[in-house]
Amino acid sequence: MKTVVWQSLSETQQEYVLQRPAITEGANISAIVSEVIDSVRQRGDDALLELTEKFDKVSPESIKVGTEEVNAAADRLSENMKQALQQAYDNIAIFHKAQKQKPLRVETQPGVVCEQVTRPINSVGLYIPGGSAPLPSTVLMLGVPAQIAGCRQIVLCSPPPIADEILYVAKLCGIDNIYNVGGAQAVAAMAYGTESVIKVDKIFGPGNAFVTEAKRQVSNDYRGAAIDMPAGPSEVLVIADSTAEPDFIAADLLSQAEHGPDSQVVLVTPEPSLAERVADAIQKQLAELARADIARQALGSSLIIVADTLMQCVSISNHYGPEHLIVQTRDPRSLVSQLDNAGSIFLGNWSPESVGDYASGTNHVLPTYGYTRTYSSLGLADFTKRMTVQELNADGLQQLAPTVVTMAEAEGLDAHKRAVTIRIEKLQAQQNRAVANKEVQ
Amino acid sequence: MKTVVWQSLSETQQEYVLQRPAITEGANISAIVSEVIDSVRQRGDDALLELTEKFDKVSPESIKVGTEEVNAAADRLSENMKQALQQAYDNIAIFHKAQKQKPLRVETQPGVVCEQVTRPINSVGLYIPGGSAPLPSTVLMLGVPAQIAGCRQIVLCSPPPIADEILYVAKLCGIDNIYNVGGAQAVAAMAYGTESVIKVDKIFGPGNAFVTEAKRQVSNDYRGAAIDMPAGPSEVLVIADSTAEPDFIAADLLSQAEHGPDSQVVLVTPEPSLAERVADAIQKQLAELARADIARQALGSSLIIVADTLMQCVSISNHYGPEHLIVQTRDPRSLVSQLDNAGSIFLGNWSPESVGDYASGTNHVLPTYGYTRTYSSLGLADFTKRMTVQELNADGLQQLAPTVVTMAEAEGLDAHKRAVTIRIEKLQAQQNRAVANKEVQ
Ligand SMILES: [Zn+2]
Ligand SMILES: [Zn+2]
Repeated sequence: MKTVVWQSLSETQQEYVLQRPAITEGANISAIVSEVIDSVRQRGDDALLELTEKFDKVSPESIKVGTEEVNAAADRLSENMKQALQQAYDNIAIFHKAQKQKPLRVETQPGVVCEQVTRPINSVGLYIPGGSAPLPSTVLMLGVPAQIAGCRQIVLCSPPPIADEILYVAKLCGIDNIYNVGGAQAVAAMAYGTESVIKVDKIFGPGNAFVTEAKRQVSNDYRGAAIDMPAGPSEVLVIADSTAEPDFIAADLLSQAEHGPDSQVVLVTPEPSLAERVADAIQKQLAELARADIARQALGSSLIIVADTLMQCVSISNHYGPEHLIVQTRDPRSLVSQLDNAGSIFLGNWSPESVGDYASGTNHVLPTYGYTRTYSSLGLADFTKRMTVQELNADGLQQLAPTVVTMAEAEGLDAHKRAVTIRIEKLQAQQNRAVANKEVQ
Repeated sequence: MKTVVWQSLSETQQEYVLQRPAITEGANISAIVSEVIDSVRQRGDDALLELTEKFDKVSPESIKVGTEEVNAAADRLSENMKQALQQAYDNIAIFHKAQKQKPLRVETQPGVVCEQVTRPINSVGLYIPGGSAPLPSTVLMLGVPAQIAGCRQIVLCSPPPIADEILYVAKLCGIDNIYNVGGAQAVAAMAYGTESVIKVDKIFGPGNAFVTEAKRQVSNDYRGAAIDMPAGPSEVLVIADSTAEPDFIAADLLSQAEHGPDSQVVLVTPEPSLAERVADAIQKQLAELARADIARQALGSSLIIVADTLMQCVSISNHYGPEHLIVQTRDPRSLVSQLDNAGSIFLGNWSPESVGDYASGTNHVLPTYGYTRTYSSLGLADFTKRMTVQELNADGLQQLAPTVVTMAEAEGLDAHKRAVTIRIEKLQAQQNRAVANKEVQ
């Protein structure tokens, strides 16, 4: 890890060291993906089976995973594992249930009622990557909010063979459309539907460069599907002062580094001696890690920044906008109101990133690569949409009419004005009749 | 307008009649826009001035609009206009202030606190199209939530000369970065910044095909900017029964039709005679409209659907997913809980769409073209982002540790496990010391 002293850098150098490495895209990823999408759209399940054999070297018995397989997976899991997954499920459910939005109702002026209501997105698709180890935590992070939001169709795709842990969590989340499909072909299948795979409205989840590109392509097509957020390499920034434990910080930086060789790892501290002690602790702990090679690569492009003050650390973090932000200082709580542009913030010595990755209750799907400036931590809101409702009574319309008429005139929209005046005329005719009736009586 | 009887159609025909016309993109729009973006990125203000002269046939004195110009615009406006804009501003502000989200704090299990906080997006860009008539209402719909969210930089671009109404509303919304730039070049300037134009994090607002394509392109570049939502032609669907006023419905359909020749206008009713009366009323009212030509073109591709029952009307609407949904039935309120996939819903006889376009308080920036399935009516949430915060105490971490360790093991993430166990070991050492001290005493 490289150590820099912030104040010794020019502004341009400061910009430069905080720059994330460019994501190098294989030149023909886009073309390959677009071909995969085309063949899934044209040949449906046949294409899926073919591509699964080609890329995953597996020929699953059927594309859809049957209930018996799901139940058998549960039987094979240890009680210990089931309990862990259940506790994670429970915490994530509690935090996401708390995010439910109550309907909003406001009378902006007498007789003019404006409301905001939410509805679940009807049909969502969850992509769970394969790889050397299963990722049940990702199923929880996508499946729990989908279930709590009340999405009517929840689809899950993952490259076969799908691990028992994934099938078990899918069942916890009430997902009964599970498909043995991975990669760009899974994204295509969920975006457009096939004979087996249900078409969804929105696709969630992480994946490799092909999955990311497929999500990008289907989200640019209105016949395709919306997506959760742009993807990027995972990253952590730690703000620490002299009260922090170097061992803890090293462990946290390494747990980020082991995610992948492109992981970004940054420590910002006003304490030069802490910087040294963390660097030492990293070397010591690194030696014992199973994924030491990956972590070492990630650390190669990582950074320790020695700042002048704690407030400067905060401003560096806000400028960088990390996915994960760990604050290990004397009084971390006091910094929260100053912190901005972070996916998820971990306060104090007893809140390592791994609790948020798995089981504290927060979502681990977070904006990264600087997207924290505009995107949010994944939450219940991403599985719902907001609609507005308005209802005026006759009085409300009469009060508001002059404003609407004046603005419609300014914008040259005649029929917009008419839609109001035609009603006002009717109301006045009614009122005149009522007066006339009264005079007759 | 074509009238169809829903039950007489096959399922395929039903799908077909609800299909929106394909958006025909000029083949080289994408190439033209990408060239415009390149030149703005390379030559900044010079490119802006050149492109403004080329496309808008104007050479503004400066790119940035000065305070004196804004004040002079206010002086030129009538009191009547100012009052109308102020009332609209007030109502929109009330409804959007009510959308503020309180911070969320949940203890998911003892000692494990999870929170959700929101922050304004720091820097936002508002695009206001030019054209024959000014669009102050769009400034309100974008500027008011940006102001209430607390965005620190609010930028507004509009093709020169910018109308007095727009400058006046910009001032109401506290916007002091107003630029004489329109089209794709305005989007490029806001996404990447120039000498004059401040770079923003997210771009909002409607526009022509070039603006839409520019927004798409900059949002696909991580160095660019996020955008509000995908664009599409404006549309309305009216659900009406025998209690509805044909004249009102005709006025509402026409106010949608006058927006543009590509506007979509649909009436769904279980009442065949209403269908006829509305068609007649449209013909009568159409003759008197200033924008009759535009409206007539829009009506050409529009539709009256005669359904069997009111519930069938609801399900047709949910399937179509209209931007604006007007419900004129005996008891419109009773249908709300069944309605889905709509941008904004207007209930009853006294709630024409034009009140929502201008002044009731709801936002008129709405998902269209079927995007109502996944996107929301623009609101305060679009000008903010959600971050999560978590804080565990030592007990909380000890309780949660076995779950995290089990899951980290399953996912093969050694360092993730270590980040927890290293803390637990430290805690146990502390506890042992405390016990030992006690024994010594
Ligand atoms: Zn992690
Ligand atoms: Zn309108």
